[in-house]
Amino acid sequence: MPRPGASRSGGTGDPAGPASQPGVTRRRLLGTAGATGLALGAVGTAAGYAAAGSGDPDTAPLTSVGAETAVFHGKHQPGILDPMQSRGHLMAFDLAPGAGRKEAAALLRRWSATAERLMAGESSASDTGVALDAGPSALTVTFGLGHSFFARTGLEKQRPVALDPLPDFSSDRLDKARSDGDLWVQIGANDGLVAFHALRALQKEAGSAARPRWEMTGFNRSPGATARPMTARNLMGQVDGTRNPKPSDPDFQQRIFVPDEPSGTGTAEVPGGGSPRWMAGGSYAVVRRIRMLLDPWEKLSVTEQEAVMGRHRSDGSPLTGGGETTEPDLEKLGPDGTLVIPIDAHARISRPDQNGGAAMLRRPFSYHDGSDGKGAPDAGLLFICWQADPVRGFVPVQRKLDRGDALSPFVRHEASGLFAVPGGAERGGYVGQALLEG
Amino acid sequence: MPRPGASRSGGTGDPAGPASQPGVTRRRLLGTAGATGLALGAVGTAAGYAAAGSGDPDTAPLTSVGAETAVFHGKHQPGILDPMQSRGHLMAFDLAPGAGRKEAAALLRRWSATAERLMAGESSASDTGVALDAGPSALTVTFGLGHSFFARTGLEKQRPVALDPLPDFSSDRLDKARSDGDLWVQIGANDGLVAFHALRALQKEAGSAARPRWEMTGFNRSPGATARPMTARNLMGQVDGTRNPKPSDPDFQQRIFVPDEPSGTGTAEVPGGGSPRWMAGGSYAVVRRIRMLLDPWEKLSVTEQEAVMGRHRSDGSPLTGGGETTEPDLEKLGPDGTLVIPIDAHARISRPDQNGGAAMLRRPFSYHDGSDGKGAPDAGLLFICWQADPVRGFVPVQRKLDRGDALSPFVRHEASGLFAVPGGAERGGYVGQALLEG
Repeated sequence: MPRPGASRSGGTGDPAGPASQPGVTRRRLLGTAGATGLALGAVGTAAGYAAAGSGDPDTAPLTSVGAETAVFHGKHQPGILDPMQSRGHLMAFDLAPGAGRKEAAALLRRWSATAERLMAGESSASDTGVALDAGPSALTVTFGLGHSFFARTGLEKQRPVALDPLPDFSSDRLDKARSDGDLWVQIGANDGLVAFHALRALQKEAGSAARPRWEMTGFNRSPGATARPMTARNLMGQVDGTRNPKPSDPDFQQRIFVPDEPSGTGTAEVPGGGSPRWMAGGSYAVVRRIRMLLDPWEKLSVTEQEAVMGRHRSDGSPLTGGGETTEPDLEKLGPDGTLVIPIDAHARISRPDQNGGAAMLRRPFSYHDGSDGKGAPDAGLLFICWQADPVRGFVPVQRKLDRGDALSPFVRHEASGLFAVPGGAERGGYVGQALLEG
Repeated sequence: MPRPGASRSGGTGDPAGPASQPGVTRRRLLGTAGATGLALGAVGTAAGYAAAGSGDPDTAPLTSVGAETAVFHGKHQPGILDPMQSRGHLMAFDLAPGAGRKEAAALLRRWSATAERLMAGESSASDTGVALDAGPSALTVTFGLGHSFFARTGLEKQRPVALDPLPDFSSDRLDKARSDGDLWVQIGANDGLVAFHALRALQKEAGSAARPRWEMTGFNRSPGATARPMTARNLMGQVDGTRNPKPSDPDFQQRIFVPDEPSGTGTAEVPGGGSPRWMAGGSYAVVRRIRMLLDPWEKLSVTEQEAVMGRHRSDGSPLTGGGETTEPDLEKLGPDGTLVIPIDAHARISRPDQNGGAAMLRRPFSYHDGSDGKGAPDAGLLFICWQADPVRGFVPVQRKLDRGDALSPFVRHEASGLFAVPGGAERGGYVGQALLEG
């Protein structure tokens, strides 16, 4: 049965996401699409409630958070260009012993069908009821494939070179049990029960084909909690994401997504530039669970924190002046003759033009898993970045940060994953179909 | 510096909370109260941004989630009658060795001052900046005192009899490390960063006076995610809280709150009815971390689940018909001659009129802490109920449920706490002052 969905443009979502740019919004008006049960209900009653058999008259069309809807089908998968949501789950699965290409294809077909239904505000096959009463709440579900997926399915020759393991970084303290995985699922929604509902549906549908490997939960600012269309803030109190590429940038598509007709040479079989054809419209996700060492960080004065970042904490503006998006003046000296933005400031070292123009689209969640058992908070960033090629995106930036970032003493990378995220499924198709049926 | 707050009535919050009833709303218009920095800012710029030194013109008054504000001072503490928020943290602390009455009083004074500031959308003493840009987002902070608090502070004679340990229940599987505690803090907000910001501020201000004992994080439906003003739904997919007492009930105040002039005899020194005088306007909170065994639960058909509950899953209506708030017909027989609402149905056994009129106000959060390491979800309910006397509220209901509830095989009580929650602080005063300076 459909759940309530009423017409509303979703263009007013989180400003940190680039989807509010003209031309790239994936949102749509639900309008009549959600009204299949209308004939059963009272006038003015949202479709879902009528279908649920309720005669309750105090229903109304969804006009806010619940009504926002992302679309499953398209050139790219959802959850990349959509505004960041207030609630997120990341899960990795490994194919079960004995499961191969056939089982993986059936699983991705099941998962894709469920993702489509849930994102439209409909129920899944054996629904738990947890999302009843709620609208889609901007739910997105995104699927990725890890390096190990290709050997398990006999598809090594199709494995993108871009999935070659990330280099080791000296500051890594990686927990293997919470890293990597054959399959990766990203869930985002602006309602905690809607997100949990999707998580349980996908877990159950893994069935005997795949076993859970790891699971993480995160959050972002709620829509409407802030008045200013401002970049997100992280648990260190810092504005985070100021220099994210924008869909209006001329090279945005080529930096973030694999082209529609990739060179077809970038596989394990024939290394070379680009990505294999089955990755057309896809992207690569680097996932890092970055613990923030908040106790020492919060002992710094605001001035000390700002020297580490190179930006003002209040509004993210560079220490050399202006607003959040003003270019930092990296040469500017203070009255004492030293650089205003210190030589090891995070904002200096992570700048794209300091890294050969490397660009990645960061779309993270914060996380907070209580205390670490020693009294310190187990909290930080579920860093997720998107790029057409990790070797040009994440790797050069992280190499620089690893060597000389003033922020390094306050963060610790505790888990890591790299996933090929195929292009969006066609109507009637499923994510990964071009690979698995290619 | 103040954070942005603009005028809006908060009366449209979560319908499961009783605060939308006339006469009991604790919300207020922030209006000019939040505008102390206005002279510094551009016309039309929200106060907080101006005070933060930003010249950014694209600011606007908060008109939605962020603007909602609960008040700290009053007859009762916040977080009891306020609408349920989408995000919650529960924390318990133990007083540090050597800390006694004096340190406890200083701590509750510090905490109360910070709670007041943060709930008004202002910064705390050494602010982390995490809530910058956000409005108060309906933040509430509530403080409670556990049984052990009174011996630690030399105040045994003032200890309410109502804090005597709860009886053991046969279905309890309690983890002592996550139960009880000298001090209890409940945080709720409609934004995850605002809630986390408050948690960190209060943890830091515990200083050397108190050490964290346990910490739990929960969530509820986001405001606006559902169109119907409906009772909350839990992670079993069930409507939960239908029979909550309402502020309009004639006996609401006396069932939930200690009277303004209690008998003064209900202490450890002089047992008797009622509560001690220092608890005037207070309430008792029973906190239970109730794990839901979702794997077996979700294997039941909807019909089987409905027989366990005695209510329809779709809308919470009794199996004997009507809407969510219709009285169940407990005598009604089906065509096969058996009770339509089974003899052990949860809705039958938990009914107040089956328990001597016991009434408690339930105001829970759901929780989901990933997997339990054996592949099952570590998820369920952070059950919190409020009553003037736990022996008339929680205890008789739980005793009945413990014996014969059809729901019992699907839930497991894993942690428990019982806390005396004093009345609200007076302006210039702090929570617990009547006890600690009495």
